[in-house]
Order: sequence, then structure tokens, then C-alpha cells
Amino acid sequence: MSAVLSSGDTAWMLISTALVILMTIPGVALFYGGLIRRENVLNTIFLSFVSFAIVSILWFMYGYDMAFGADMWGFIGTIANPFFGGVIEANTLSTYAPTIPTGLYAIFQMTFAAITVALISGAVVERMKFSAWLAFIPVWLTLVYLPVAHWMWGGGWLAQMGALDFAGGTVVHVNCGMAALALVLLLGARKNSNLLPHHLGYSVIGTGLLWFGWFGFNAGSALGATNLAVSAMIVTNLSAAVGMLAWMLMDKLKTGKPTLLGALSGAIAGLAAITPAAGYVNITSAIIIGFVAAICGYYAVSHLKPRLGYDDALDVFGIHGVSGIVGTLAVGIFASPLINSVTTGGLIFGQTHLIGVQLLAIVVIGAYSFIMTLIIGKVIDKTIGLRVDDADEIRGLDINLHEESGYRLS
Amino acid sequence: MSAVLSSGDTAWMLISTALVILMTIPGVALFYGGLIRRENVLNTIFLSFVSFAIVSILWFMYGYDMAFGADMWGFIGTIANPFFGGVIEANTLSTYAPTIPTGLYAIFQMTFAAITVALISGAVVERMKFSAWLAFIPVWLTLVYLPVAHWMWGGGWLAQMGALDFAGGTVVHVNCGMAALALVLLLGARKNSNLLPHHLGYSVIGTGLLWFGWFGFNAGSALGATNLAVSAMIVTNLSAAVGMLAWMLMDKLKTGKPTLLGALSGAIAGLAAITPAAGYVNITSAIIIGFVAAICGYYAVSHLKPRLGYDDALDVFGIHGVSGIVGTLAVGIFASPLINSVTTGGLIFGQTHLIGVQLLAIVVIGAYSFIMTLIIGKVIDKTIGLRVDDADEIRGLDINLHEESGYRLS
Amino acid sequence: MSAVLSSGDTAWMLISTALVILMTIPGVALFYGGLIRRENVLNTIFLSFVSFAIVSILWFMYGYDMAFGADMWGFIGTIANPFFGGVIEANTLSTYAPTIPTGLYAIFQMTFAAITVALISGAVVERMKFSAWLAFIPVWLTLVYLPVAHWMWGGGWLAQMGALDFAGGTVVHVNCGMAALALVLLLGARKNSNLLPHHLGYSVIGTGLLWFGWFGFNAGSALGATNLAVSAMIVTNLSAAVGMLAWMLMDKLKTGKPTLLGALSGAIAGLAAITPAAGYVNITSAIIIGFVAAICGYYAVSHLKPRLGYDDALDVFGIHGVSGIVGTLAVGIFASPLINSVTTGGLIFGQTHLIGVQLLAIVVIGAYSFIMTLIIGKVIDKTIGLRVDDADEIRGLDINLHEESGYRLS
Repeated sequence: MSAVLSSGDTAWMLISTALVILMTIPGVALFYGGLIRRENVLNTIFLSFVSFAIVSILWFMYGYDMAFGADMWGFIGTIANPFFGGVIEANTLSTYAPTIPTGLYAIFQMTFAAITVALISGAVVERMKFSAWLAFIPVWLTLVYLPVAHWMWGGGWLAQMGALDFAGGTVVHVNCGMAALALVLLLGARKNSNLLPHHLGYSVIGTGLLWFGWFGFNAGSALGATNLAVSAMIVTNLSAAVGMLAWMLMDKLKTGKPTLLGALSGAIAGLAAITPAAGYVNITSAIIIGFVAAICGYYAVSHLKPRLGYDDALDVFGIHGVSGIVGTLAVGIFASPLINSVTTGGLIFGQTHLIGVQLLAIVVIGAYSFIMTLIIGKVIDKTIGLRVDDADEIRGLDINLHEESGYRLS
Repeated sequence: MSAVLSSGDTAWMLISTALVILMTIPGVALFYGGLIRRENVLNTIFLSFVSFAIVSILWFMYGYDMAFGADMWGFIGTIANPFFGGVIEANTLSTYAPTIPTGLYAIFQMTFAAITVALISGAVVERMKFSAWLAFIPVWLTLVYLPVAHWMWGGGWLAQMGALDFAGGTVVHVNCGMAALALVLLLGARKNSNLLPHHLGYSVIGTGLLWFGWFGFNAGSALGATNLAVSAMIVTNLSAAVGMLAWMLMDKLKTGKPTLLGALSGAIAGLAAITPAAGYVNITSAIIIGFVAAICGYYAVSHLKPRLGYDDALDVFGIHGVSGIVGTLAVGIFASPLINSVTTGGLIFGQTHLIGVQLLAIVVIGAYSFIMTLIIGKVIDKTIGLRVDDADEIRGLDINLHEESGYRLS
Repeated sequence: MSAVLSSGDTAWMLISTALVILMTIPGVALFYGGLIRRENVLNTIFLSFVSFAIVSILWFMYGYDMAFGADMWGFIGTIANPFFGGVIEANTLSTYAPTIPTGLYAIFQMTFAAITVALISGAVVERMKFSAWLAFIPVWLTLVYLPVAHWMWGGGWLAQMGALDFAGGTVVHVNCGMAALALVLLLGARKNSNLLPHHLGYSVIGTGLLWFGWFGFNAGSALGATNLAVSAMIVTNLSAAVGMLAWMLMDKLKTGKPTLLGALSGAIAGLAAITPAAGYVNITSAIIIGFVAAICGYYAVSHLKPRLGYDDALDVFGIHGVSGIVGTLAVGIFASPLINSVTTGGLIFGQTHLIGVQLLAIVVIGAYSFIMTLIIGKVIDKTIGLRVDDADEIRGLDINLHEESGYRLS
């Protein structure tokens, strides 16, 4: 191989990988853990940690190859190196990122699979069986995440059609949002689904770590320490900031009082929405994306959910799913060849092809994720059972499933 | 431009930028949030988050240009690229840091503006109106931070005179300290200003993240992954460590018992004091700086404040202001051409010029910040009003301003 | 010197250093702080912070030279540059890591000394005098850590014999584990040693930061942004993940319910065990190492400790000591020249020399640490006294030793 390892790119991708891991454990775990009843805090945190651990192992057993191995029929990759056998020893550079080692690209991608699974858990907290969640992780990873990641990032059919997803608008956010929706339809609502966060400070820490880690997620998706990484970092931060302020504005207009929970939600919406676009759009577009995502998220959470009556506990669909859709469409509108020469541009550059494939990607990935998750969930429901007993739900999952309690403060 | 991008320098500056963002959200937010009454925890945290969001946006609208654009009369920069238009697309390297992209230098500098505003909030917590704070942020950024940053770092008159501020002794710490003092004079004291931290664990997490992030702040200010960055990292860590132990010593001498709050305060004092000096002084000097800063901070907090009777709630002046002064003067004394060839040295190298301009910088920036903040605060007081109602203050700001509560633990 | 500074390697080592600092403050501090009674939370956290501060200073006074200076009789290094005088000014590259500055190697190594001391504190919490701990830190660092680090990493006798410890299986984990055991034998058991964590959320945050920081610890020990760093990152993450699941399995088999505390403990066990091996073993070996470490740790904590009756409060020996032994032996078994050419391989490559010197390293370092710590502890006991009064222990250390309280939530 004529390419040589760049120690600067490798340094950036090593820390980017660590940053995305931090997003899941403890980032997502804490963000979710602060928002539910105190009787379920440990179980909620546990769902993220165990998702991360299981995905970590399966990824190197066969996951990476299924997502990024040699393409079969545009649908899935070939498992050529089970247990990543010999890959590190071969000391090759990645075909996807030719200035960093293959192993680094693999573990960076692993972190995306892990956080996607962990994000889903926010919908099912406070009532799903721990054993059912343990069963869900490997099956969903294998049957949903790996194919979808292959289609978009591993040279599969959507990539071949020219769909663009810089850091996971469809693969991560639409995917987890639709899976969440499917699971809560099977699970049903909690007995008491009034969201009264028991410890918002946890969610503050979680959001801080998510914002911090998202620079690894998005700027790391430039796959090197380049001007494109810088651009992705700037638009990521702007979209988050605008999202926060936009949600505060909606709170102010609707209830008269901006809430911290709203501000954090808006920031996450802005971060999720800029994710697919971070490497393709300029600063003005990022401001629009963050704003629109927060407004759409606000309506999904405060109007759509109550109207439709599903109990997506921590708004995985309302924030991640909706933002993923907004951001993926935004790529079709705002993508700029001046930012990234891989694209000839979106609608504002007079190109109509891109918005079409972006819409196709949303529909197909959304539908695939929703339907497959319904099937997987149904099978688990019929075998293990998805939902805890009523008594366990009322008394709380920490003590009943784990014999632990989150606080002994008095 | 003949210079080429260094991926190693760029990698270090990308992560340094993320580190300084982490310092503000959630670092400063948590550090402050742990120290006040539980009824105000969310409002206190909110002040930092919203500061960060607003500064993030304004910085790329016009802030960067006003601070770092082409110099006008030594006072302010020219707004040549509103909304940073075309800068990223031009793919240029920074004139301030010729091995990294212009956009990276810009977002790195943004983080300093954001944390400076957030730090001020520590003085006004538990009684300032949220709307007043929202108004304060853009005005203060524009009228105070941007000019001051230009004078010292953007090629303005203090830079032209040879004043040195490696990472923000004057621009950040003296500046926020004097602004804090001005605001609390206008606001008046809280009804109950006995500092009894409601959750010191938050402040522990905040201090940990601040210490961690300060390596981005100070070693990042070397603008590359160089021996100077290493030197800045070593002296930063030493000054923090010495500051912690010195404050513990004062606690022990005065009350017989070292406190964790004192230890954390001493560490912050040491970190703030080494900030202007981190790229100019050697290890022995750093130990002296950390020690002197903690002793001065201790006296400012425990003697000066009670004597003068102002209610600087979380000691923004007593710790940041005082340490900024100590560190900026220390540059005039200890700056070493053996550490950094940009200087011919301070007093210990027989040079008297530097200490003079350092003193001038402290006086002018301190006075400018104080007077301008008084004016800004007065205008806000006459229009929006600075202070919440007595009833809101007594019942707490979280429930009254945000309809939220920090904890539902029982 | 013909070598030149690599900015990519330097960037990676700067952030790795910061990461290991984050592990101690606030990582270890929070992990430990969540596991004890609420009346001791601040004291427990304080022990880590003060360990870090004191080691930071002593390291640059004489510590680095004693560990890494010119070898004397294989036992200790020469103090050639007290207060690191002139080292940074000389602007040399490290003889241990020829692409990064000497100062960077020095501060990276400092972080290992600091965390080793802080880890010991987990054994003695809830009953050791704060003054005794303050005295213990410098003495133990000087008489135990510095020689041991020299033997293994500074060109001392164990290094000369070919013993391998990539990132601290013996120097950090066996060392702190045996020191912990010695101290608790002197201190005796707490009056109430039932472990009921008062705030497991702190331990979740601590574990998250430890896991994140461990990439600096282990992948940073490659001393550059190389394929070896990538390999170390991958096996580190895998061992942690497997350790978590293995401990959960034991919980499930023994009590029917996996606990979050068990999961966190298993992850730490996996991380500690892979530490000495991270730069020498492949993925399959890492999975075995994480599994065995968690099983051994589980038995040490749940069977060995109750049987022998020592009160190692937070299982420093049971987790760090045992995992250090497992991982160090694993190097002798699984070390692969295909991963790292410095070794001709362990048992699985038909080599018997390595396992012999690994066993020798464990025995000698373990015995040295245990005996020296017994002596140091005994001297402190006879002079300052090791243990607080019964009344202080019952009422709690926070209020009695520091006049502070961890929570004012009601």
C-alpha cells in the first residue's frame, strides 16, 4: 500500500473513538438515568452499560465484517476475519480511511453501533425486563444495525446510489428512533408515564459528556485531523447551541418559562440533526438545521406523542428519530461542494438527485428498522416476555431486578 | 501560503477545543451548581449553559472578527466575514497559528469567550433574573470581551506594547473577576449569603473536569503539539497541585481542619494564576505562582470579602480576579526566554519593561471591565430589572423561574 | 539527536496524560466516593485528590529521576535534575520515547504514580486519619513506588531480566493491591463493614471516566499514535466488556440477579488485568484475560475476603491486586511477537522464559510492596496514629475531620 500512516490523523481518531465511548458510558446512561423515577435509576443506567459491553464483543467477533466487509449483493458484508483474526497483526491501513490503521477504523465504527443500541433503551425504561433487553441487544445489532450500516457506510446499495450520511443521521438516529417506536408499541405504556425527572443533575452531566463526545462522533467522522474535521466541529457546536435556544424559545412561548430539561433536549436535537450533515454543510445551514430540529422535536414531544398516545419514555423517536429525519433531508437541501468535494451539492446548488436518495434512505431504513424491530420484539415477548410484572414496575426495577438502590442518603 | 497543515498540531487543537468546551458545560456549571442552595441548582447550571450557547452563535456571526480581525486603531477588529462566510470554504491556515486551519483557531478562541461569561455567573447566582442574564450575555460579550481580547490577543494596543497573556490571565480571569464585582455591587447581597454547599460532589466533578480541561486551555494555547505545550501542561498541573495544598494549609492553620471545598478552591486559584504564565515560566516559578495565588485567594475570600461586605456568591473575584492579577504580574517577574523565545524575560532576567506593561494591562483591563459592566448592569437594571422578587429568592429560583426541581429523591 | 519530534505522537501523549489525570481526579475519587457511607463521602474523595497533588509535586522534585534516571545497581535511578531543572529548557526528546519531548514522558509517567497511590486509599476509607494519609503518601511514593517503577520501567533489574509490564500490571495494580492489604492488616476492620453504597451514581460516573481514561493509560503506553496504540485500545475495551459480563454471570449464578455494582467491578477487573498485557496480546487473548480476571476477582471479593476476614473496604486487593496478578501472568502465556516485536512470545509460542520472569516480578514486587508498606504503616501508627477515634468513625469522617457534609438536600 502506498499510503502511509499519519500519526496526527491517528491521534485524532484514537481520541475520537474514546470520546464516542464516553458518550455511551456514562453519557447516555446518565442522561437517561436522571430523567426517570429514582426507583429505576440503576436499571436505566445498566441498560446502556450492558449494551456497550455486548456490542463491543460481537463487533470484533463478526460485526465489523458484516457491516464493512466485502459487499454481497449490496446488502451485507462478508465475514472474512472472525474475531478480527490477524487484522491487527497485518498492520494494514484502512481502505475506508487510508491514513489510519484498519483496527482504528473498526473500533471507531464499533462505538456507533454501541451508542445506537444504548439510545433505544431510553424508550423502554421503567418497564422492560432486563433479560429481554439482554436478548434484544445481539439480535437487533445483527439483524438491523449491521445491514443498515452496510447499506450506507459499507459500500452497500444506498451508498452506491449516492445517499450521504456523514456521521449517522439514518444509521444511528432514524434507526434508533424507529426501533424505539416499534418496541414501545409492543411494550405498552408505563402505569405512570408522567415524566418527572428524579435527578436532573445526572442529565446535565450526561448532556455535557454527549456534547463533548459528539466532537469525536462528528468531527471524528472526517477520519483525520483535517479542515473538514474543523468544519464539522464548528457546525456541530452551532447546531447544538441553536437547538438549545430554540427549544427554550418554544418553552417560553408556550408556558412562559424556559426549562433546563427543554434546553438540554434542544441541544441534543441540534446535535442529532447536524450529525448526517456535519461534513457537508456550512455555518448558515447549520444554524437553520439546529433551529428546525428543535422546533420539530418540540412538537413531536409535546403534541405528537400525547396525541398518538405511545409511551416513548425518554423521547428517543421524538428527539433522535425526528432530528435524524430533519438532518438527513437537510443534507439533500444544503450539501455544499465547497465544504466537501464528494458531493455536487443539494437543492440549493440546483441538484435534485441527492434529496431524492436522502428521502429514500430515510423511508427504507426507517421502515426496515421499524418492521424488523417489531418482529424481534414480538419473538422476545413470546419467549422471554418483554415486560416486568406490575408489582415490579410499581415498586421499581432497581430493587426487584438487581437488589440494589440508587441512593442511601438519609 | 507556504505553510502546510500539521495533522498533529490540528489533532491537538481539535481536542483542546473540545476540552475547553467541557470546562464550561458541564464543568463550571457543576462546580457552581454544587455550591449553592438546592433550590437554585438548576438555575445556576442553566446560567453557564445558556452563556455557552449564546456566545457560540455570536462568535461566528461577528465575535471572532471583532476580536481577531484586521486591527482598527489598536482597539477593535474589523468584521470582514459576518457569519464566518466563506472562511471554512477557503481552507486557509490561521495567521495566528500557521499549522492549523483558520476555523480551528476561531473555535478554539470561542471557547475562551464562552467560559469567561459563564464564570461571571458565579457571582450573581441565587438572585439574578434569568431574563436579565440572557440580556447581559450578548451585550457584555460585545462591549467588554471582544475589545479586551483584541487588545491583548488580536494585535491590539496592549499586544503592541508587549504585554503577555498566554492563556487568559487578563482576558479571562481579571476580566471576569472585575465584571463579577461590578455586578454584585449593583445586585446587592443575597438575603441569606451563608455559603453552605448543597451538593459538594457536583463541585468535585466540576473541578475534575476543569482541571482536565485546563490542559486544553493552557497547553492548547501553545497552538500546537510542541515542547511548549508540554511545558505549559507541566506547570499548569504543578500550580494547581501547589494551590490545593496551600489552601489546605491555610485552612489547617486558621481552623485546624482542611476542607475539601478549600482544596478545590486552592486548585482553581492555582490553575487560574498559572494561566497567563503557562507558556513563559519554568517549574520553580510555577510552584511559587500556585502558592502565592492560593494564599492571596484565601485572604480575599475569608478576609477582604467580609470586610468590604460585597456578596460575590462563589468568589469569582476572590479566586479568578485575584489569581488573574497574581499570574499576570508573575509573568512580569518570572517570564523566561529559555522557556519561550518571544520574551526577553521578566524581572528575574533583569528586564523591567515587561512588569510595567503587565501592570498596565491589569489596571486598564480591570478598570474597563469594571466600569463597562457597571454601565451595562445599570441599563439592564433600569429596563429588565436585575434582581428577582424577594419571594422568588426565598422560595428558590428553580421552581419560580423554570418550574423545575433539582431532586426528587424521596 | 537525530530523532525528530512527531507532532502526532506528541498530540496523542498530551491527551493520554490528561486522560490518566482524569482517572484519578475525579475518576477514582468518585468511584470510591459512591461506595461508602454518606457520612464519609468527602473524606473518601479527598484522599484521591490529595494523593494526586502531593505526587504531582514530588515527581518533579525528585520522583522522575529516582524512577527513570541513570540506573544505579539495577535498583534505583539517579537524581540528576532536582526540580526538573533545565530539562524543559533543554528541549530534548525522551530517551524512552524518542518522538516526544522528555517532559511529556515525565508527566505521563507521573500520572501512573499518582493513581497508584490514590487506588490504595480505597482499602482504608472510613477509618484512617487524614493526617496519617498525608504522611503516608510521600513516604510510600519514595520508598515503594519509585524503586518498583525503576525495576520494571526505568531500566532496573526486572527490565534487564526481560520482565514485561506494558502499562502497570505489577507497578500499579499488584503494587497498590499488596500495599492495601498491608495497610488494612494494620488498621483493622471498620466497626460496620457492610458495603452498602450510598450513591452508586457517583461510581457510575467514576467507572465511565476510568474506562475513558484507561485508553490514555494503556493505548498511551504505546508512547505514540501507532498501530500498537490501536491494538492496545481494542484489547483494553474488549477485556473490560468481557469482565463486566463475566461478573454479571457470576452474580446471576450465585444470587439470581446481576447487579450494577458487580458489572462495574467486573469492568474494572477486566481493565486492570489487560493493563500489563495491552501491548503484547491479541484479541482472543484479551477476551480470556477479561473473563479470568473477573472470575478471580469475584471469588477474591466474595469468598477469600470473608474467609480471611480482612476489611479491604473497596476491594483494592480483590480487584486490582488479583487482576494485576492475572494480567501479568497472562503476558507470560499470551505475549505475541506478531503484536509486538519486543517479545519472542509467551508459553503459547513455546517460550518458557517469560512466564518465569513474570512470576518473579509478581512475587518480588508483591512482597516488597507488602513488607515495606507494613513497615511504613507501623511507623506512622506509632507516631501519628493510623486510625481515627471510635466516636469519629461512628459519626463519620466528613464532619469530624473536615467540618463539612456531602449533601444538604432536604
